Amino acid sequence: MDKINLLEKFALFGEPWQPKIVAALNGQYVKLARLKGEFIWHHHKAEDELFLVVQGQLTIEFRDRSVVLEPGELIVVPAGVEHRPVATEEALVLLLEPQSTRNTGEVLSERTVEALEWI
Amino acid sequence: MDKINLLEKFALFGEPWQPKIVAALNGQYVKLARLKGEFIWHHHKAEDELFLVVQGQLTIEFRDRSVVLEPGELIVVPAGVEHRPVATEEALVLLLEPQSTRNTGEVLSERTVEALEWI
Repeated sequence: MDKINLLEKFALFGEPWQPKIVAALNGQYVKLARLKGEFIWHHHKAEDELFLVVQGQLTIEFRDRSVVLEPGELIVVPAGVEHRPVATEEALVLLLEPQSTRNTGEVLSERTVEALEWI
Repeated sequence: MDKINLLEKFALFGEPWQPKIVAALNGQYVKLARLKGEFIWHHHKAEDELFLVVQGQLTIEFRDRSVVLEPGELIVVPAGVEHRPVATEEALVLLLEPQSTRNTGEVLSERTVEALEWI
């Protein structure tokens, strides 16, 4: 039950596309990730996913449009919806999703992170 | 699947202690609340609750200690733990909790909000 300072947690790691867990509640994880460049197209079969931008700019591409998120903006990507996060410059992002969620969804790739680390 | 700008949403309402729903995912609601003054002591029987401060300063009092949250800081209050939010000056706070959560937990008071509004 200690407080979590988001920027202090981000300072603990530098690698992009490697989400770290900072909190758990109600079967969900709060994760922090540094995103830079283009991720892969994927979806999550049964899990909704929240992205909240803390610093930088994040584009969530959908098959038919894109949404650009600035700091203090969030989006929920519903289960089943294909999406691709893209950040031209590095973005610091808070994620919220069920504990079962794999970062690359139904896709297995070199970007897949199976064992998430707590920080 | 539109993005949500937190400060734009906060600008839509002014009353304290009246959480508004801005998003739903995985059986949880993302809520925004303006907190000012002292809330009541309460707990949530089966629901963990996340507080993330967007603006201002929020103190979460527990029976044995207090935690002061600044913008960009969050805390998870586990189910069953008595707590009391206190904000001397107005604080803008993002909450995450199951859709079933009542703001005053197991306590019914004049502060209880039964029907939450989406904004």
